[in-house]
Amino acid sequence: MEPIITLTTDFGTTDGYVGAMKGVLLGICPKARLVDITHEIPHRDVRRAAITLWSVASFCPAGTVHLVVVDPTVGTARRPLALYANGMFFVGPDNGVFTLVAAEGTSVVALEETVYHRQTGPISATFHGRDVFAPVAAHLASGVSLEALGTRVDCWVRLPFPPFVSHGANRWSGEVLYLDHFGNGVTNLRVLETHGERMRLVPLGSPAPLPNLQMAANHICWRERELPLVRTYGDVAPGQTLALIGSQGLVEIAVCDGSAGASLGVQPGDPVWFISEC
Amino acid sequence: MEPIITLTTDFGTTDGYVGAMKGVLLGICPKARLVDITHEIPHRDVRRAAITLWSVASFCPAGTVHLVVVDPTVGTARRPLALYANGMFFVGPDNGVFTLVAAEGTSVVALEETVYHRQTGPISATFHGRDVFAPVAAHLASGVSLEALGTRVDCWVRLPFPPFVSHGANRWSGEVLYLDHFGNGVTNLRVLETHGERMRLVPLGSPAPLPNLQMAANHICWRERELPLVRTYGDVAPGQTLALIGSQGLVEIAVCDGSAGASLGVQPGDPVWFISEC
Amino acid sequence: MEPIITLTTDFGTTDGYVGAMKGVLLGICPKARLVDITHEIPHRDVRRAAITLWSVASFCPAGTVHLVVVDPTVGTARRPLALYANGMFFVGPDNGVFTLVAAEGTSVVALEETVYHRQTGPISATFHGRDVFAPVAAHLASGVSLEALGTRVDCWVRLPFPPFVSHGANRWSGEVLYLDHFGNGVTNLRVLETHGERMRLVPLGSPAPLPNLQMAANHICWRERELPLVRTYGDVAPGQTLALIGSQGLVEIAVCDGSAGASLGVQPGDPVWFISEC
Repeated sequence: MEPIITLTTDFGTTDGYVGAMKGVLLGICPKARLVDITHEIPHRDVRRAAITLWSVASFCPAGTVHLVVVDPTVGTARRPLALYANGMFFVGPDNGVFTLVAAEGTSVVALEETVYHRQTGPISATFHGRDVFAPVAAHLASGVSLEALGTRVDCWVRLPFPPFVSHGANRWSGEVLYLDHFGNGVTNLRVLETHGERMRLVPLGSPAPLPNLQMAANHICWRERELPLVRTYGDVAPGQTLALIGSQGLVEIAVCDGSAGASLGVQPGDPVWFISEC
Repeated sequence: MEPIITLTTDFGTTDGYVGAMKGVLLGICPKARLVDITHEIPHRDVRRAAITLWSVASFCPAGTVHLVVVDPTVGTARRPLALYANGMFFVGPDNGVFTLVAAEGTSVVALEETVYHRQTGPISATFHGRDVFAPVAAHLASGVSLEALGTRVDCWVRLPFPPFVSHGANRWSGEVLYLDHFGNGVTNLRVLETHGERMRLVPLGSPAPLPNLQMAANHICWRERELPLVRTYGDVAPGQTLALIGSQGLVEIAVCDGSAGASLGVQPGDPVWFISEC
Repeated sequence: MEPIITLTTDFGTTDGYVGAMKGVLLGICPKARLVDITHEIPHRDVRRAAITLWSVASFCPAGTVHLVVVDPTVGTARRPLALYANGMFFVGPDNGVFTLVAAEGTSVVALEETVYHRQTGPISATFHGRDVFAPVAAHLASGVSLEALGTRVDCWVRLPFPPFVSHGANRWSGEVLYLDHFGNGVTNLRVLETHGERMRLVPLGSPAPLPNLQMAANHICWRERELPLVRTYGDVAPGQTLALIGSQGLVEIAVCDGSAGASLGVQPGDPVWFISEC
């Protein structure tokens, strides 16, 4: 079976940066299938990269190598890493980008074996994506073992994610994490299970299963408004504001046939309230 | 030979939606070649998706599977479909997106056999692209027959396309359908044949060969202006407005070395006049 | 080994143009791996395409076929070309786009053998990318020899690139070529070698190795400002302006954690001064 390497960067698609990485990848692992996740992560937004990677990784086949290069501290002492979690490999900088795809005890390797970095020229101080991470990803895809790439590290950067905040009397709030392409406000209200009208929630990125709250489906509020929680857009009239459980399992604030960002002004960081029933 | 699956969506490329679909496609059909047609269809613009798909499909090899997910009514009663036409497969929602690539009598199947949908989790109500259409496209690419996917349906949604309008005295008008990346106004004046200075025209998406009009090449007007119909941009001076038969066989309004949209204000829906000589 | 075909165009990704080219490529060479370099070259910017191609080509495996379609004079008498240089093939219009990847004496072929152009329909006067260049690239990737494609030409268009300008007393200036995705001002100061604090420079695209200047690393000026030349962004404080040798070997003007284009107003054409020490 041909190995899959995915790419997630903030490089944009106007320059040659992505093409150079792909040239390096195919030079080392000619059989690799390259899959762009996105190159439009907002510049230096490690948290957004962590969320995007998490939203895709579990849909990829076992053995996939995920190459992530959102790397604002490239060239400094921050370590280059590779790790294995949930049957897949991940390669990128030690800045928290793997927080949502690997648990705290995951085996992680610092990429010290320079024989697996680019061999055909000097290593750029500003483009480890091309000269360190792409070569390592291609070697992993070619069958090199994780252990061969460097020494194990026990401590790696984990990004803090916003918790739920208690406001007394069973009132809690999460927050909008980002606006997606459709202008939906994607929140950190992660739905673990639904039981009829009730849902069990944790904040995305929560280290422990607590808070693990029950919520009645009809109690999601954004800016004093109570939003109907519906199955899909077509359940309300065009123009109406709604909440739904998005395809990533996160509650989203949306406008039917519209953009919650553009028409309501939903913004990252906005609190989203709910009433706990546990 | 490795099967080809093309992707046409309005998902944009900033989120993980396309990556998740590709993960699912390669999980089911590891040998598939994935070809992005575009992920920049304007949000919910089924007509534009139909035109884009039509403009590409005939250039793809026989056996290609075209996955189209512009799906504003996802999760409602609209049916998921697959069909076989002109030697290729098409998979997507029953909203008219296949109007230009399949004739009215084409064999179409409603995707009722859930064993060919995603098996490794619940089906999202808002992302059939990932959970229904991608798995089905991958199964088709792997050799599953169209018939296995569900039951045949005789009636499926066909999108109305604008006809030519008669204005008496052999005057007709078509219209600008959209502006392309270069700012060219792409019209529904579809050229079936050219004979020297004359062309045989039908409106794009016309169900029947009528109206099937002859036009003198020098009689294309937009907003009172008569435009020279030329072979290519370099046939006129920079800055000059022109008409030409674009690479899709549709008459386009363009500005040499410029943008007809930005500099002239050409807009979708603008009438484009011509004189019939039949 | 599966052949690689890269694509560099100014087509954007909203229309079906790229998809149609890829359909044609895979129809002729089903085993090809298609790698997008970019489709966002600014419209008709042949020089930018030449730079982007140069910045990627050397990172691709031997045998790669580079298809470049930035072709403002499509359909006129400008010739379609293919050439072989540095172990790779290049296919595109004779407008200078190959200036930086092939030396002046390189063997170049005019694509006269129409049997290697698209055979399944007429050749569009406005889309040689689909009907001439893509078929030729796919035939090269399939093993057709360069010589078979047409007759050798000795003279082909080479684009002028800006030289260094002398301002007396060992003062010289190069210029900003373009802003990249991060807002960095990429200059034509190409660093051939560094020796401690000194660098050997040539202007990008210089036909001869002269001027070949030595520069002290601390003498790069933009608009009266002397910029620190650092190894990487993290060597200065956030918000500080800096110069560094970018991953392409070109000096760049940047702002740590910011955009030199947006916050300083760095623009293409801006002079960048340095003091020669030779």
